[in-house]
Amino acid sequence: MLSSSTTKIILDLDTGIDDTLALSYILASPNAELIGVTGTYGNVIVDHGVANDIRLLKMYGREDIPVFKGIDHPSTAESFEVPPDSAIYHGENGTGNAEIPAQSDRQAESQSSVDFIIDSVRKYPKGELVIVPTGALTSIAAALEKAPDIVDKIRIVLMGGSLTQPGNMNPFTEANISQDPEAANALFATQADITMIGLDVTTQVLMTKEDTQALRNIGTPVGHFLADMTDYYINISEQEDADNFQGGCNLHDPLAAAVALDPTLVTTLPINLMVETEGPQRGRTIGDPTRILENPKNTKVAITVDAERFTKRFMERLLTLAQTTK
Amino acid sequence: MLSSSTTKIILDLDTGIDDTLALSYILASPNAELIGVTGTYGNVIVDHGVANDIRLLKMYGREDIPVFKGIDHPSTAESFEVPPDSAIYHGENGTGNAEIPAQSDRQAESQSSVDFIIDSVRKYPKGELVIVPTGALTSIAAALEKAPDIVDKIRIVLMGGSLTQPGNMNPFTEANISQDPEAANALFATQADITMIGLDVTTQVLMTKEDTQALRNIGTPVGHFLADMTDYYINISEQEDADNFQGGCNLHDPLAAAVALDPTLVTTLPINLMVETEGPQRGRTIGDPTRILENPKNTKVAITVDAERFTKRFMERLLTLAQTTK
Repeated sequence: MLSSSTTKIILDLDTGIDDTLALSYILASPNAELIGVTGTYGNVIVDHGVANDIRLLKMYGREDIPVFKGIDHPSTAESFEVPPDSAIYHGENGTGNAEIPAQSDRQAESQSSVDFIIDSVRKYPKGELVIVPTGALTSIAAALEKAPDIVDKIRIVLMGGSLTQPGNMNPFTEANISQDPEAANALFATQADITMIGLDVTTQVLMTKEDTQALRNIGTPVGHFLADMTDYYINISEQEDADNFQGGCNLHDPLAAAVALDPTLVTTLPINLMVETEGPQRGRTIGDPTRILENPKNTKVAITVDAERFTKRFMERLLTLAQTTK
Repeated sequence: MLSSSTTKIILDLDTGIDDTLALSYILASPNAELIGVTGTYGNVIVDHGVANDIRLLKMYGREDIPVFKGIDHPSTAESFEVPPDSAIYHGENGTGNAEIPAQSDRQAESQSSVDFIIDSVRKYPKGELVIVPTGALTSIAAALEKAPDIVDKIRIVLMGGSLTQPGNMNPFTEANISQDPEAANALFATQADITMIGLDVTTQVLMTKEDTQALRNIGTPVGHFLADMTDYYINISEQEDADNFQGGCNLHDPLAAAVALDPTLVTTLPINLMVETEGPQRGRTIGDPTRILENPKNTKVAITVDAERFTKRFMERLLTLAQTTK
């Protein structure tokens, strides 16, 4: 049962194919109020992701939603370049070489994403707002470092990490966490209320070519765009890792967005997590043995998912959105 | 609530301090019927562990329980020597340099542990027998390879592995699994009903010097032996890893024995596991991404434990055993 109340959402995106799907899902969800999109890096550089966000919001007729730029490089580096793997998976333009059917002159707000996040957490009563990071966690960690007071109110549902499955960058490390392990480790070390939607569950939720065909059949520019973009993602998933291809692409970021609205889609393990920062395991999300007996455990790691319920809801909402967007 | 029915148990031990505590716990449990002890390697070599088992059973007046030798070396090696770490943790004699207060001329049975396990699984109705391995899994894997028919009936509650916490041999690997990763991987790849009691939960259950003092206060040879042996384990745990010392020693093997009798002591995650056999992660227990969508998932990994309920029950039974053993 979904609550009838509305959840305020900030999406912290590196847009990105599945980021686009997550944004679409939130806009299509009647119980979500997207109060802002903040840009991080990972699949693309910040400027590129933010430009995509602005065009996508224009495409959906939602230019009322502000967009903010975040920190554009890891906390331990001077700069960031998109790793070759990400460029392959998301295409050069971030949307699988499908053209977003909208142009916009709008610019990002002058306020930084870090300050927007801090202000928003302070502004709303506890429980009303959820931050959904789907890329590098640099800006989120920076917000908590700059304004430690928000730790008691912030609620984060992030896509990233892998606890019970191997990583997707290497056997230890998931891509989002790999971008800035130190920032992720700092975040998990706080007492913030964090739900981790990692490969444990996101690799159990798929979008197939039947789904993309259904979007295409709607016949709208949005339907065509979403279908073409996602077909690219399905094709590249098969091409890059044929042995593990599951018949579709994983809905990584959309699952985090969905859990932000409906936590009952997953079951979680409360645990005090750390991110390893040294050696071959750099970027590994794993229990912190020095805090194993500490309570309360601030992080909830999703370990099972009701894949059928999620994917059904996801497609219903996307089809409606593709149909109703003018 | 415990069932009033009795569970038949085979303990597959590398005895070992916590193996001794597991054996003691099973003998002290009114709802357990120990039908045999089988010897594997790890903390000690097989011959040494079996000799300890025979003396311990004599100490407890239970020479009716047969003891069987298992395979004495890893499936991928010609021989086995006790790793320096194990020798340090369990003492040269396996019981923390405390002398088992009993001698016996009894020898192990002539039947191999592999054949005893196969025969026993075939003999009893499904659900009546649980195998509890607390060392290297070589013999258990060999039994399943030799008699594939037992896979549908065998129930295994093993101490080993680590899914949500780092290992104790290195960041990836727990000691028991590290002895024979290939055998462990072969076991997890079967459809056998396996419950994994790993560092995820065993590092949450402790025995302290208050507990050992209570055993010593009983005033019996058994009470003194168990107290002296476990004090060694507590001291070495502090000495070897002072930074992570939790105020006592972990009850690794006893927790597996307890869960074999009462599965409600833990909650579990059903998952298809693999053991990595290459690279620095050799011996790592982790979800098998190629089987993530496969059902049913044969392995249940314990992820939370009711530590208070277990340790209370554990100490009550050990104190009674120390008091009633003549």
